[in-house]
Amino acid sequence: MKELVGAETSGEMKQEWVNLIRVFTCPEDETTRAVLVHHMRQILFELHDFLIQNVGITEAVSLKEISDRCTDTVMNRDPEKRLADVITGVFEEIAPHAVNVASPYFVGHMTAAIPYFMVHLKAIVAALNQNVVKLETSKMLSVLEKQVVAKVHRIIYAKDDAFYDEHVQNTHTSLGSFTEGGTTANLTALWVARNKSLGPVGDFKGVEAEGLPAAYAAHGIDRCVVLVSKRCHYSLRKCGGILGIGNTNIIPVPVDSTNRMRVDRLAEMIEGFKKEGRTKVMAVVAVAGTTETGNVDRLTEISAICRREGIFLHADAAWGGPTLMSETYASILKGIELVDSVTIDGHKQFYMPMSCGMIFFKDPTSLDAVAYHANYIIRKGSVDLGSKTLSGSREANCLILDSALKIMGSRGYGMLIDHGIELARDFAEEIEKRDMFQLVTRPELNILTYRICPTSVQDELKTASDERINEVNEHFNEVNRTLQQEQREAGNSFVSRTVLEQETVFPGSPEGNVVVLRSVLMNPLTTIDVLRDILDEQESIYAAFLQGASTKKGRHRGEEG
Amino acid sequence: MKELVGAETSGEMKQEWVNLIRVFTCPEDETTRAVLVHHMRQILFELHDFLIQNVGITEAVSLKEISDRCTDTVMNRDPEKRLADVITGVFEEIAPHAVNVASPYFVGHMTAAIPYFMVHLKAIVAALNQNVVKLETSKMLSVLEKQVVAKVHRIIYAKDDAFYDEHVQNTHTSLGSFTEGGTTANLTALWVARNKSLGPVGDFKGVEAEGLPAAYAAHGIDRCVVLVSKRCHYSLRKCGGILGIGNTNIIPVPVDSTNRMRVDRLAEMIEGFKKEGRTKVMAVVAVAGTTETGNVDRLTEISAICRREGIFLHADAAWGGPTLMSETYASILKGIELVDSVTIDGHKQFYMPMSCGMIFFKDPTSLDAVAYHANYIIRKGSVDLGSKTLSGSREANCLILDSALKIMGSRGYGMLIDHGIELARDFAEEIEKRDMFQLVTRPELNILTYRICPTSVQDELKTASDERINEVNEHFNEVNRTLQQEQREAGNSFVSRTVLEQETVFPGSPEGNVVVLRSVLMNPLTTIDVLRDILDEQESIYAAFLQGASTKKGRHRGEEG
Repeated sequence: MKELVGAETSGEMKQEWVNLIRVFTCPEDETTRAVLVHHMRQILFELHDFLIQNVGITEAVSLKEISDRCTDTVMNRDPEKRLADVITGVFEEIAPHAVNVASPYFVGHMTAAIPYFMVHLKAIVAALNQNVVKLETSKMLSVLEKQVVAKVHRIIYAKDDAFYDEHVQNTHTSLGSFTEGGTTANLTALWVARNKSLGPVGDFKGVEAEGLPAAYAAHGIDRCVVLVSKRCHYSLRKCGGILGIGNTNIIPVPVDSTNRMRVDRLAEMIEGFKKEGRTKVMAVVAVAGTTETGNVDRLTEISAICRREGIFLHADAAWGGPTLMSETYASILKGIELVDSVTIDGHKQFYMPMSCGMIFFKDPTSLDAVAYHANYIIRKGSVDLGSKTLSGSREANCLILDSALKIMGSRGYGMLIDHGIELARDFAEEIEKRDMFQLVTRPELNILTYRICPTSVQDELKTASDERINEVNEHFNEVNRTLQQEQREAGNSFVSRTVLEQETVFPGSPEGNVVVLRSVLMNPLTTIDVLRDILDEQESIYAAFLQGASTKKGRHRGEEG
Repeated sequence: MKELVGAETSGEMKQEWVNLIRVFTCPEDETTRAVLVHHMRQILFELHDFLIQNVGITEAVSLKEISDRCTDTVMNRDPEKRLADVITGVFEEIAPHAVNVASPYFVGHMTAAIPYFMVHLKAIVAALNQNVVKLETSKMLSVLEKQVVAKVHRIIYAKDDAFYDEHVQNTHTSLGSFTEGGTTANLTALWVARNKSLGPVGDFKGVEAEGLPAAYAAHGIDRCVVLVSKRCHYSLRKCGGILGIGNTNIIPVPVDSTNRMRVDRLAEMIEGFKKEGRTKVMAVVAVAGTTETGNVDRLTEISAICRREGIFLHADAAWGGPTLMSETYASILKGIELVDSVTIDGHKQFYMPMSCGMIFFKDPTSLDAVAYHANYIIRKGSVDLGSKTLSGSREANCLILDSALKIMGSRGYGMLIDHGIELARDFAEEIEKRDMFQLVTRPELNILTYRICPTSVQDELKTASDERINEVNEHFNEVNRTLQQEQREAGNSFVSRTVLEQETVFPGSPEGNVVVLRSVLMNPLTTIDVLRDILDEQESIYAAFLQGASTKKGRHRGEEG
């Protein structure tokens, strides 16, 4: 069995091995090849048509039915089907029950259409199967990652030529790295911040070596906190939990009516912790493109406070980062060059396939705080990228971004960004024109929230009692929740929903929550006409709801809770 | 700019937008299409031939030359090249300087040839671009992940039908998840172990909420430790650092001459910590397939100790896990069904493209210890997989494994595993036959280490003084280090090298290190003849070295340090 033709194996075994090698190396016959050619042509050359024709936004088939098809847990011993049949099965039995996130009518999440050539590039990455943990399994791809990281670093930090010449291929420093996503990127940033805050003192070898309890003792503190925007991504709380700080020590700073961190409150809170003593503010996290509302914190003002207080400042620009490529709107992120680290997701507004994040550091030695080495790989002073990343083995996604930048240029990316921002403004205008809707958060980037709530009701709420405000909002929360579900289940279009605090949305109103519809506009094929269709559909769902409200109430709760 | 044809945009802008949309959606002309068809055919249908012809194991061009080509850090504003030229550039200027990890002569790392159809499957995953963080962006793919996880769980834990019927699609429990790699999987396991060890007591809300210092106080301890095999992957130390335990509290348990954790020492160490008091053993980590030598810890014995002491036991089977599919060698992993959690890498012996790991838990409620929720996604009780994973957004790699299992069956995978194990045994025999080599670690799975060290020298060492042993080993460390580099740079074949402790390798010898060559045999196209070629080449490099030792010494240090 050791060789293609091994004298010691029986004839049957030999044949089985020969067959396996054939399946391993190339299509076993012309029929298989033809089937594969057909399917690959669809996704490589007719991607958007294929998705529209074959993949629903959501499907008529219920989640329960789909789950019922996926209950067999016994691994088949022998091939279940011939290769061509398996691939056909993927196209006919799985893809139709996936979600067509590429539809122009899918405007609810931060996942949307990607350029067709991204599929080609991902296939090339898989074919080369490089592992950038280590130079020996990636060579040029490790070098390329350093270059691409430097290119993005440069649009953030805009250091001079000498700086980039020194660091782009420096094996002792690092401007950042690709990660698997925004969470890993944020985790890397806070990991660095923690280790820098609680470094070696006296006999103490640093938090990474000795752990947090020893670090608190050595540094004479009882508590570490991270101050974050109340609108920050939930991953920040998770990072606090993972890193041992405790997620209750990830402390939200209130936001103003534009969903941006209140800088006055930030300053007060830092002052408060200083007075309290024995509490260390380990980092501040600002957001450049909040997940729920797309707003950007006042980076310049926040960074001035952090610099004064010597606090590490991270910017979660997972969503908004690529706005820096817009020639019109880059200034929305002004001040980002002042922060210590920046998260940007590749699979969001760099339009790369799932999953790809990135983390950047202003100081090229920051990642030294989290460096690891091993005997068989990532030796000290090597080009092995794995020495300064949270993950070990990692695919060469840098190839995708490098190529995409060559194909579209920052100008092309900027135009995609501009489209989203301008479309969001037009959409906001359209929402405000319609009597049935209330614009809840005005778009700063390309995300907005709104809800069904007739103008007459909005007027009434302006002077209503707290009790009445709560009562009306509770009603419309139920309406909007149901409406979002009905629209999703109808399968033509998709907006998402989230919950904002009543007092943030309507200053002065009592405590309580407001359910809102959330629209994320990044698909270049989405137009204002598409958005009008979506509003039309929502109006008619609401009209039907008004007619039969009592009988239908609570009907649409089954699927997701 | 908002629509394909927008009256408010200038003619030039309109044309630019139309061009961009064209580049986004499909090949812009027949020439582009033809170029893409040509390249995609190469990687989709002639993968192995393509890699052999176009990608070196390593290349004649030096790292410095490659680095010098990748120093431009200014992002181009306009498209740098036409799409077809960019893709051609990838094939002509980047791929040749990647590493052909698929070569039968590349037997040095845990990255090797993958079946050609994996590239098709990865392309499909990219085309669908599902995000399994959330049902709304993945639907059937979330359901499929739960099924595939259950299938692998079943080959590990072999629970009964009723168990899998209850949990396979249960939205309140989880048998595990896909991760980005082994590090994230190990981190998830230890994150769970930490949170279970330091859960809520009295007013204390648990370590995840309140952090480690508060947890130690509430649980009345001063220190948490994790006991790991001395041969464990370096990621475990990193996990200790990240989780706030401190990496010096990831404590190695000595191994015996078969590179397996000494169970007697483990028991003694646990006893020692108990006596010491105020130190909690948070987890034990056993290895099923050590990175350096491919050995498997005594899982049954270790688990008996952990059960008795109430300690969480994790098995890092990133490498060895798929051995469970071998009909001949699965028993090497016996006892794995007793451990609390298991890491297996998809991109290793499941032959999936980079990067894919998996984590499994015996107890389907274990992941509750690390659950997070958010308003806009991953609501409680939903199918949203993101609520119980370290990462957020994540690609649907389950589709790849599901299809591969249907195509090859566990039998096919088992044959690939058997090939590696049996080839490793034959290789060991061949090494022992040759006077010039010393087999350092005998293969248990499909990894072995050896070195250049003539039989005569080996004989001498048996009775030599400590001083002489050190002197000889220092000499051969230099020889083997240089030899490995020369062979890599020659570009025909690749083995890796690592460092083992002198006393483990040669019991009774003085402290010191032994540089060894390390061979990982997972490529089904690697045969014993290939391995003989590799040994022949090493012999001739050594012969040349002997001839010109004095003049060449230290020459090969530049590239990697």
